Amino acid sequence: MNYRMSSYLLGQILLITAGLMLIPFIMALALGESNTPLAFGITLACMVCLGTPFIIKKPKNTEIRARGGFVIVALAWIFLSLFGAMPFTLSGYIPNYLDALFETVSGFTTTGATILAEVESLPHSLLFWRCFTHWIGGMGVLVFVIAVLPKTNAAIVHLAKAEIPGPQFGKLVSKLRFTARILYGIYILLTFIEVIALLLCGMPVFDSFVTAFATAGTGGFSCRNASIAAYGSLPVEIVTMVFMFLFSINMNLFYFILIGRIGQAFKNEELWWLCGYTFLAVVLVTVSLCMHNVYETFGETLRYATFQVVSVVSTTGFATADFGTWPVMAQTVLFVCMFIGGMAGSTAGGLKVSRIMTLSKVSGRAIKKSISPRAVLSVKVDKKRMDETLVQNTVTYFTLYMLLILLSSILCAVAEPMQSDFATSFSAVVTCINNVGPGLSAVGPVCNFGSLHAFTKVVLIFDMLLGRLEIYPVLLLFYYKSWKRA
Amino acid sequence: MNYRMSSYLLGQILLITAGLMLIPFIMALALGESNTPLAFGITLACMVCLGTPFIIKKPKNTEIRARGGFVIVALAWIFLSLFGAMPFTLSGYIPNYLDALFETVSGFTTTGATILAEVESLPHSLLFWRCFTHWIGGMGVLVFVIAVLPKTNAAIVHLAKAEIPGPQFGKLVSKLRFTARILYGIYILLTFIEVIALLLCGMPVFDSFVTAFATAGTGGFSCRNASIAAYGSLPVEIVTMVFMFLFSINMNLFYFILIGRIGQAFKNEELWWLCGYTFLAVVLVTVSLCMHNVYETFGETLRYATFQVVSVVSTTGFATADFGTWPVMAQTVLFVCMFIGGMAGSTAGGLKVSRIMTLSKVSGRAIKKSISPRAVLSVKVDKKRMDETLVQNTVTYFTLYMLLILLSSILCAVAEPMQSDFATSFSAVVTCINNVGPGLSAVGPVCNFGSLHAFTKVVLIFDMLLGRLEIYPVLLLFYYKSWKRA
Repeated sequence: MNYRMSSYLLGQILLITAGLMLIPFIMALALGESNTPLAFGITLACMVCLGTPFIIKKPKNTEIRARGGFVIVALAWIFLSLFGAMPFTLSGYIPNYLDALFETVSGFTTTGATILAEVESLPHSLLFWRCFTHWIGGMGVLVFVIAVLPKTNAAIVHLAKAEIPGPQFGKLVSKLRFTARILYGIYILLTFIEVIALLLCGMPVFDSFVTAFATAGTGGFSCRNASIAAYGSLPVEIVTMVFMFLFSINMNLFYFILIGRIGQAFKNEELWWLCGYTFLAVVLVTVSLCMHNVYETFGETLRYATFQVVSVVSTTGFATADFGTWPVMAQTVLFVCMFIGGMAGSTAGGLKVSRIMTLSKVSGRAIKKSISPRAVLSVKVDKKRMDETLVQNTVTYFTLYMLLILLSSILCAVAEPMQSDFATSFSAVVTCINNVGPGLSAVGPVCNFGSLHAFTKVVLIFDMLLGRLEIYPVLLLFYYKSWKRA
Repeated sequence: MNYRMSSYLLGQILLITAGLMLIPFIMALALGESNTPLAFGITLACMVCLGTPFIIKKPKNTEIRARGGFVIVALAWIFLSLFGAMPFTLSGYIPNYLDALFETVSGFTTTGATILAEVESLPHSLLFWRCFTHWIGGMGVLVFVIAVLPKTNAAIVHLAKAEIPGPQFGKLVSKLRFTARILYGIYILLTFIEVIALLLCGMPVFDSFVTAFATAGTGGFSCRNASIAAYGSLPVEIVTMVFMFLFSINMNLFYFILIGRIGQAFKNEELWWLCGYTFLAVVLVTVSLCMHNVYETFGETLRYATFQVVSVVSTTGFATADFGTWPVMAQTVLFVCMFIGGMAGSTAGGLKVSRIMTLSKVSGRAIKKSISPRAVLSVKVDKKRMDETLVQNTVTYFTLYMLLILLSSILCAVAEPMQSDFATSFSAVVTCINNVGPGLSAVGPVCNFGSLHAFTKVVLIFDMLLGRLEIYPVLLLFYYKSWKRA
């Protein structure tokens, strides 16, 4: 590991995040809030003081290998979260720092699992920051760094690739810097359109902005205790739902549409899998709700079912209904959707549709191979033969991911009290590692993660980071060879 | 598929199973039971009438390809279960035939999940048959056919390989017929030793036999409502526990010990993984029970924890305590153990320790590869380089298995009532596909599967078969190409 270069990069990331934190700081001052200006001020001062010394002199050796790159990404996210949590504790609104850290990691990783039983008493600047972390984390802070810096060094390019979710990273234009700018441009544009749409639906200005941030990052934090249900407005639900779905689509496809290659966008196989499985999930949940007459009319059933499915598929986690009280079939369908998530290259979490697509095709091939063992069969995506290394990487990724879920669910049960149940600890792990937000039972949509033991929260913090950074960066933190001086 | 040869083989299997069913039939007659002699008699008559026409003339073309082989194995198991269930329904003790089928499949697949709320009112012949199915299914009926037939054709050899659990089949001697005889010899010997040991502990003769059958097959049916807890005897528990563990060890290792190659047996890496993970699970469950003072003394805690862990690790499912009331950590540890199971080549279910070993090593390799992508790293087992095709097959198997679990848990929730919970349907699938027996919540160790909906039972029947036959044979039943005439 190149320690000089790593600290230089971390310093840069820290200062840029400090720049983003200026927005809630100024908001706190402008609104004349009592504790928050000082809290944000101290945090900003700390970030600037810690970050500046490292960026004064650019190191001569700027090389970063794969090994060091992963560790830097993980460290960057941990540092951001450690600082991002400070305003909550310093202002006294989340007195326990671990809780504040959980909330911030949940924000940056776009999970949206909260430890707060009620959020409406929080001042506007904190509510803004809370949802803004979703927006920052959704697209990735390293991608942002690349987009804003006038000239990026090769090292940071490697890091950003590690941050963008999905098995592969598709460059749109020859320079990554411009790709990052295009992506952030689309991201900002879509967010802005959502704000306008929500305003037109009659949502208050502040609420429109934070809801749009939480939707764009597919996070799920809301400034209302009852989440989207608080507005009791069908237009608001529809707008939120449409944008949750849009943000679980690969950003590259929007670029293709913008430059007129609409055909290419709609020929994408992963997109059709996403649409197909979302549709299937809506049908199954609706059938389940109808079978048990949970809602009075079919329209109402369809309304709640569609919103909740899209919310889980996009791994946002907004709620308009308490699916914890739904029939077990509906709950199980939502649970399975948590594993799948959105498309690669979107802000959504989960395993990503592209991986599920590959895994399904690999399974199909295994069945075919069992009857004709000597047949050479390749996995095809978008009518092209998929590289076998990539196929094997996907299958290995799935294995590692499942083993980590099983291991985490033991760790998450260690410190829990006698009355805690299996569905709570198991679904907490699944919802956190997939960056969804609400789970089942005691961590369901109308409950929160506040009552969990401190140790469980630490495990879930790691799970959220594992999910967002796609396992390897976080695991490599604990592998001694990653720390070897280059 | 070679239809003539397939029906010839199925006929053979049917008649040999009829031969085995003679034992409970004679028992029913000898004990002067009221309904059972007729029930067994009719079943036997049906089996003989259906089986004989097919074996009269040996087909000229005896070739069976991989394709047809898998289907025959699956069909054989389905036929056995269909006939094996008849005595329960014909005698009137399990009036619903689907319930009887569930019980029989649970028996043959050595799952041990029961639909009966109480078993002590069943006549001895039925109790015997119920546990005898464990014993038959444990080692496999096709292996038995090979062992008893004076001369086997090449076709059946392929089938038996599909029936023996584990990723690989290790031949002990050059002729498979003799390997099968050796394996069955060890199986019978160990069962016999257990019967003697249980008798010495003061267990009644009948109970000793059926308990030994259920242990040998790592099934878990008992002739007492309270399972092993009914005897309230520490020696009985210890004997059962020791034998449950022995039967989750690869039978080949006993052969090595018998022929004096003790060193080779103890050098087996999978054996040490089994011991290691069982020990770890005992420690974790004990710690969990101690943390919440579930039992008064440490001795008592250790006694219940050890028995329950070994029962789940070996996928037997005997109970001496209701682990459904244990702290969530203990429940989660047991839940994770269900996935792992015993060694390949034993009668135990689960993924098998050897697969978990491979998966862990593949995961470790993936982490190493993530920091040095160009390194060529092989997976080593028993200090030998593992064939990469086998490695990939294991990872693919795991993928298919996990996808089937997720799919099954949706299907298992479809017909369940509103008050059913996620832990019930999910753990029912996990316990059935791993051939363990008891699950969590409403299918926990003191509950039964009787209250589930008929549709759920059908899904679980398939899950049990999927687990026992290791997926492919059952899936190929639904693949049109498997049925193509050769």
